[in-house]
Amino acid sequence: MSKIRAIVAGPRGKMGREALRMIEKDETFELVACIDRKHDGERVRDIEGLPALEALIYTDPETCLMEVEADVLIDLTTPENGYVHTKWAIENHIRPVVGTTGFSEQQLRELSTLCEEKGIGAVIAPNFAIGAVLMMQFSKWAAKHMPHVEIIEKHHDQKLDAPSGTAIKTAQLIQEVRSSQSQGHPEEQETHEGARGAEIDGMRIHSMRLPGLIAHQEVIFGGQGQTLTIKHDSHDRESFMSGVKLASEKVMSLDQLVYGLEHLLD
Amino acid sequence: MSKIRAIVAGPRGKMGREALRMIEKDETFELVACIDRKHDGERVRDIEGLPALEALIYTDPETCLMEVEADVLIDLTTPENGYVHTKWAIENHIRPVVGTTGFSEQQLRELSTLCEEKGIGAVIAPNFAIGAVLMMQFSKWAAKHMPHVEIIEKHHDQKLDAPSGTAIKTAQLIQEVRSSQSQGHPEEQETHEGARGAEIDGMRIHSMRLPGLIAHQEVIFGGQGQTLTIKHDSHDRESFMSGVKLASEKVMSLDQLVYGLEHLLD
Amino acid sequence: MSKIRAIVAGPRGKMGREALRMIEKDETFELVACIDRKHDGERVRDIEGLPALEALIYTDPETCLMEVEADVLIDLTTPENGYVHTKWAIENHIRPVVGTTGFSEQQLRELSTLCEEKGIGAVIAPNFAIGAVLMMQFSKWAAKHMPHVEIIEKHHDQKLDAPSGTAIKTAQLIQEVRSSQSQGHPEEQETHEGARGAEIDGMRIHSMRLPGLIAHQEVIFGGQGQTLTIKHDSHDRESFMSGVKLASEKVMSLDQLVYGLEHLLD
Amino acid sequence: MSKIRAIVAGPRGKMGREALRMIEKDETFELVACIDRKHDGERVRDIEGLPALEALIYTDPETCLMEVEADVLIDLTTPENGYVHTKWAIENHIRPVVGTTGFSEQQLRELSTLCEEKGIGAVIAPNFAIGAVLMMQFSKWAAKHMPHVEIIEKHHDQKLDAPSGTAIKTAQLIQEVRSSQSQGHPEEQETHEGARGAEIDGMRIHSMRLPGLIAHQEVIFGGQGQTLTIKHDSHDRESFMSGVKLASEKVMSLDQLVYGLEHLLD
Repeated sequence: MSKIRAIVAGPRGKMGREALRMIEKDETFELVACIDRKHDGERVRDIEGLPALEALIYTDPETCLMEVEADVLIDLTTPENGYVHTKWAIENHIRPVVGTTGFSEQQLRELSTLCEEKGIGAVIAPNFAIGAVLMMQFSKWAAKHMPHVEIIEKHHDQKLDAPSGTAIKTAQLIQEVRSSQSQGHPEEQETHEGARGAEIDGMRIHSMRLPGLIAHQEVIFGGQGQTLTIKHDSHDRESFMSGVKLASEKVMSLDQLVYGLEHLLD
Repeated sequence: MSKIRAIVAGPRGKMGREALRMIEKDETFELVACIDRKHDGERVRDIEGLPALEALIYTDPETCLMEVEADVLIDLTTPENGYVHTKWAIENHIRPVVGTTGFSEQQLRELSTLCEEKGIGAVIAPNFAIGAVLMMQFSKWAAKHMPHVEIIEKHHDQKLDAPSGTAIKTAQLIQEVRSSQSQGHPEEQETHEGARGAEIDGMRIHSMRLPGLIAHQEVIFGGQGQTLTIKHDSHDRESFMSGVKLASEKVMSLDQLVYGLEHLLD
Repeated sequence: MSKIRAIVAGPRGKMGREALRMIEKDETFELVACIDRKHDGERVRDIEGLPALEALIYTDPETCLMEVEADVLIDLTTPENGYVHTKWAIENHIRPVVGTTGFSEQQLRELSTLCEEKGIGAVIAPNFAIGAVLMMQFSKWAAKHMPHVEIIEKHHDQKLDAPSGTAIKTAQLIQEVRSSQSQGHPEEQETHEGARGAEIDGMRIHSMRLPGLIAHQEVIFGGQGQTLTIKHDSHDRESFMSGVKLASEKVMSLDQLVYGLEHLLD
Repeated sequence: MSKIRAIVAGPRGKMGREALRMIEKDETFELVACIDRKHDGERVRDIEGLPALEALIYTDPETCLMEVEADVLIDLTTPENGYVHTKWAIENHIRPVVGTTGFSEQQLRELSTLCEEKGIGAVIAPNFAIGAVLMMQFSKWAAKHMPHVEIIEKHHDQKLDAPSGTAIKTAQLIQEVRSSQSQGHPEEQETHEGARGAEIDGMRIHSMRLPGLIAHQEVIFGGQGQTLTIKHDSHDRESFMSGVKLASEKVMSLDQLVYGLEHLLD
């Protein structure tokens, strides 16, 4: 089988570096170019901190996507740049794989239409950690049959927001499949305010913040005589790369835009 | 909606008692008769330890299943009796819901054919704990995308067999979807024999036995930078009743035999 | 060694029954009498639901404690009755073992003085679950060296108060050994109120309530690159009996009143 | 208070780098010199990858320890070098803090005698992760009162030995305080060999190895109706630095050699 020829946009970012490292080690892929704001015309191996790969760097994305023969664009830049790159990629018959929560509904519709016109696939996903995506899918499934559920998420104490985005997203997915219900005893009392956590549609969410924690979430379902727990622990950006790899492989046989990694996890 | 009229076989067993208690509290059901080895012609409410229900007890299952107008037979007896009851139930257009691992392939085929002939549903399930069944289904799904997996099951120290039946069943389900692989470092060494647990097709299974434990299982999937854990804790036979209830409701709209609660958990 | 001769007060309560069962199985003990509001002059074995023990029942505690030769009074009644029983027991040279949170400071001082006068021991403990007491002691110790800590307690959804008494007690013990400090990022924001839980002196406490849970608590300490977790799971009143047994044995060699099981757990 | 003047031996090793980073950030300490095999006469800030500290590097340890005015030697080299450094340090009235399992009984006795002669303190510890040391101490304590115990340790799949050194050490500490006992049902059967794990004096130890795990251990104590779990998770060498810091501070007021961090954790 011939290799998948990949362009990486954003190679010096934290995710970009991981992507280059993944491509370097994985025989399925070949890096054919990078899109970066700097270093036009240099090779990846010449940039400090990047792997010893020969691929050329382009600062002009349009030129890169028109001139380089590639199968896939792995875009790890900002939503603004990512949108433009994605559009040009599709127009040049290069399949985009984009990790972002930042595209608007309208942008997604446009890109979807463009994919159909060109008859090629694209994958846009807010989360590439396969374990996290499975946790959310399993939670949605479990909630149909065990509707009593609480979430506890645990992060390092440098995190600013509580609850985490993943916890909120999980609650929203559960909301789609269970009818709103109140949980806990109807007459329960908090003797110390906040003990029962935040509430989203009857579900309680608890946020723990401590040094030494990294990124953890547990979704706990209770039923008569039993509980079911789905837990994801992640400690490294590496965890995203298995999802990027999966998406880059699957996008080759798609002929439309797919939003969300879960649709590739059958 | 009219109630589901249920016959319970084996009302004085541990599971049978739970089933009667469930029916007593649940407005969806009405107990119309019981099949028992003793107490012919008595009422349930007259038997010590059983709930105050009016239903008559029959010692002859054939008479019961022919004479009583019922929708569902909930059979919580032995595989031998269960098989006979199930057959008669189907022949009398009463839908069986049976919890057993003891039917042979051939018996299942026969009962399946009989269901088709009569055009009615039946549910036969080795495990009615919804949480445990979901754990197994999620494990099967997760293993496709995160094939490195180990299982730890924890039970009270009165349990005789290790690993537990559920752990073995989980490993077998995972085996169906992942190719055999060796796990751990190729050169790993046990300085104390047994440390790495039992092996089923490359998967490691660990069995903990302590007073104070009840029945717990964790299936842990490892990938780069992340782990996903699916855990089931159960502490009471009650946990089976949510599955019996679900099966008894779903069987009303089935027109064939379904083996395994998982097929009702979409 | 001769057996410890025990009087049990409150034999028909939930804890009392467990105590009788413990004594029945344990060769260290001999039941010599019970104090109950009813059944004067009957034997324990004659009361439905109680074990087949010969001991006589007294409805008048004073008579019982004066007339019966006993080593230990295990009191599992109310704080009001318990206080009176305890006093009479000490005066009659019977060592009391009492499980209560209900005695006032002054009552404890009085009983303590009485013990000194009579030169005998007594054990009064708010919690007899050895595992829970160890959890609290370890938490107090760990907090000296790892002062960043949060607590999550999980109970069945019939519980009315949040946080649990044990969680509050644990936080108070930790407070004694660490200086007050704020935890989490100074600029952290709750996008959903209550996410960060209740606060006691900077410590966050989270209360989960679900069917299928019983009684669980985790105390989690965070430090650079590591976390330490101390977890107690309890599912049965039996868990208190190991503490009652320990206290009843240790009280024999004490010559003063000891408050709290922790002082017997060296 | 004046700062603690520290010499670090082995500054370019993984632990050494962490120690320099700790000293750089911590106002309690001042780095006054390093002992290294290379870079004689250079400054720490000139070596790639090390923090911007002014301290001089010595390749000759004897010269360094004789000439530099220091309070503490933090030795993170090999047992062989460490032993020699430690000796010279004590002779020059510099208090050693050494992380090693490699000193012989006789070496420890010699160093202990030397400390007494000179009237200064020293700390030698096989493990500087405070959380791990607390886990072991709590386990030893808990086992006195809840003697039924199993250990599960979980590590990344690059680890070669099973069980881990910490698990074996924990079992040995527990052995000191409980009498040997058999666990599990006397007639339990492994249908798959190894399921019940390795055995040390009746205790079962289970070793899990998966990608995505880092370094985790759970010690689980079972009693009637309850379990107590002590768990340590560590993910970074940083976790050792809190112990190095504690030892370096405490060693200043010691006048003898202390072996094991646990003796500083009162």
